[in-house]
Amino acid sequence: MTGEFHPPARILMGPGPSNADPRVLLAMAKPMVGHLDPEFIRIMNNLQDLLRHIFGTKNPLTIPISGTGSAGMEAAFVNVVEPGDRVLVLINGVFGERMADVAERCGANLRTLAAPWGQAFDLEAIEKELCAFQPRVLAIVHAETSTGVLQPLEEFSDMMKKHPDTLLLVDTVTSLGGHPVKVDEWGIDVCYSGTQKCLSCPPGLAPITFSARAMEKIKNRAKKVQSWYLDMNMVGKYWGSDRTYHHTAPISMTYALLEALRIIGEEGLGPRHERHRRNHLALVNGISAMGLSMLVDEPYRLWSLNAVSIPPGIDDPRLRKKLLEEYNLEIGGGLGTLKGKIWRVGLMGYSSNETNVLYFLTALEQALREQGFEVPKGAGANAAKEVFIKAQ
Amino acid sequence: MTGEFHPPARILMGPGPSNADPRVLLAMAKPMVGHLDPEFIRIMNNLQDLLRHIFGTKNPLTIPISGTGSAGMEAAFVNVVEPGDRVLVLINGVFGERMADVAERCGANLRTLAAPWGQAFDLEAIEKELCAFQPRVLAIVHAETSTGVLQPLEEFSDMMKKHPDTLLLVDTVTSLGGHPVKVDEWGIDVCYSGTQKCLSCPPGLAPITFSARAMEKIKNRAKKVQSWYLDMNMVGKYWGSDRTYHHTAPISMTYALLEALRIIGEEGLGPRHERHRRNHLALVNGISAMGLSMLVDEPYRLWSLNAVSIPPGIDDPRLRKKLLEEYNLEIGGGLGTLKGKIWRVGLMGYSSNETNVLYFLTALEQALREQGFEVPKGAGANAAKEVFIKAQ
Repeated sequence: MTGEFHPPARILMGPGPSNADPRVLLAMAKPMVGHLDPEFIRIMNNLQDLLRHIFGTKNPLTIPISGTGSAGMEAAFVNVVEPGDRVLVLINGVFGERMADVAERCGANLRTLAAPWGQAFDLEAIEKELCAFQPRVLAIVHAETSTGVLQPLEEFSDMMKKHPDTLLLVDTVTSLGGHPVKVDEWGIDVCYSGTQKCLSCPPGLAPITFSARAMEKIKNRAKKVQSWYLDMNMVGKYWGSDRTYHHTAPISMTYALLEALRIIGEEGLGPRHERHRRNHLALVNGISAMGLSMLVDEPYRLWSLNAVSIPPGIDDPRLRKKLLEEYNLEIGGGLGTLKGKIWRVGLMGYSSNETNVLYFLTALEQALREQGFEVPKGAGANAAKEVFIKAQ
Repeated sequence: MTGEFHPPARILMGPGPSNADPRVLLAMAKPMVGHLDPEFIRIMNNLQDLLRHIFGTKNPLTIPISGTGSAGMEAAFVNVVEPGDRVLVLINGVFGERMADVAERCGANLRTLAAPWGQAFDLEAIEKELCAFQPRVLAIVHAETSTGVLQPLEEFSDMMKKHPDTLLLVDTVTSLGGHPVKVDEWGIDVCYSGTQKCLSCPPGLAPITFSARAMEKIKNRAKKVQSWYLDMNMVGKYWGSDRTYHHTAPISMTYALLEALRIIGEEGLGPRHERHRRNHLALVNGISAMGLSMLVDEPYRLWSLNAVSIPPGIDDPRLRKKLLEEYNLEIGGGLGTLKGKIWRVGLMGYSSNETNVLYFLTALEQALREQGFEVPKGAGANAAKEVFIKAQ
């Protein structure tokens, strides 16, 4: 028998989960109702309206998948990809690689286009590949959690209009709720996210939305969707007007997501994005003042996930262990080829605040100094504070 | 913007979710830690030990899948079934049908054996089919949530020994935590469940366990598992000693499940099963005294889910609506061919208690009388109470 568990009150500044607003945590303690209860159906309707708002879409099928962000990715691919379909996946990090793996498991005729990790894709290079390969699906990561790169999507809409048979599938796991995401305006056909990043809800659900074009492809499939659990032909009937039982919705997690989205509604999307931007800029100013550098170049930096290059000679695991154990502060290490080369510092949702920026920079200074890396005293926090003062 | 939501305090006596112990709901409000935090890894280890205990297994790969019970079903099939594998699915209700659908989507060479809904399978009939078809996987539902039938599995172990190339795959969604489940003793190779039934935890996770034989099949697959999200070759590394990142575990739901399993540990499996049996017997006694009958014959009745035949002339939706609106009481209707023919009355986990039995019988009496069905006054509750008194 195990004793009662008391998880420590970590400051979550890694690649996710971020900290949740206490209101969100408490929402899960509310009494459970059944998944076909009229009260739950009201909650589902509210939730869908709020999801459409943050996705920037009018798509009827806009729902949370009953799984984490990766289940969202899988739901996206298994529904719109049929065996033999040409799929072009853009890879500049771990999550592009994951997309390619998922697409292959769907039997896709896969082609990939690579960019160096830490860089965004050039529109021309993509268009060239689109013309040459004529894929049924083009898949791209908006916010690459493994590198901190933001892929601008504003100009995709025009490009996609020239390729009407290609569906645009986008991963917004680390951007939704922190950066603008405009599904309809940008011509996105399938867009998924996770709850534990900029939405600041515990992990366990994956918001997703499908355009009319995507729904048409799904309805006209020759072969059943390979995943029963994620088959939108059935899941859609539960979330649609039928309310047909498919699987039991995760009730308490749905409460949490609803509360997280209500909080976003209260703050407003514009101010929320601006807050993410401001805290990011303050962090970067602090990092520079400490003599450190960012992995990603200026216009492509995510506000929600900051990739800081680790200075030569620093023992990465030791430093992160110190932050965790002595400062109760979690940041992320690098993944894949960036392991040991970057720290991934999340400023997502509830975790994206002035206190966290200053606390992190102060803790980092101490931890670097312990390893003999000389940092001008207080330089990081002071430089960050300047940004906050200017913004007032 | 939506106003604050106040879900009503329903008494959940349907096919699931059941009510959760308030301790379980509050566990989700505890501070979140990261999914690779040493504290979370301790929680994972505790959770796995407790899961092995209730499954009755020593299987190392015994974990919660990051999805609901249906994701557990899908995880079971996609891992051990390869395209072309012969799979025999036994169908005597909705969840057997679902298994067949899932198996087909894995490319199985599928054969089904049917029994009437409301009846269990005869061992001889199964063995005959096993000999004739020689399947790689035999799949069966232990507790058929759509009919209230318990399939005895005690004698399966001897039968399976004669078919060493066949893996036994069992659905225990509605039995685990309410009825004895003995994975190792009964020779089960893959066994999955859900959290929202007799474990009395919110829906969102699916406990699952794989035997050494099942793991061997998975490791030696010629083709990748079609689901990236549920691929045990990768998920197993996160839950195993490697702790390799795969997807972000649903932290708060994991807290809830740990707390639910701790509560089961405190009660003890034996007393818990006995409680489920006693409350079921009391309910049945009350149902009989009211002149109603059970769908399922005596030795095959689930303790956790009671299928009560609806008397002729009763308006089913109207009756259930009255229970929900006037008594805050949820029971389930029939599914598929049993729609309108049975009520499904759950007595699962925290919801399986004397108060609920008496309250339900009293409410049912009122609701039946309203529709002109004459019930001897207080007969149901009195007959149930007799069982409780005798048991003291």
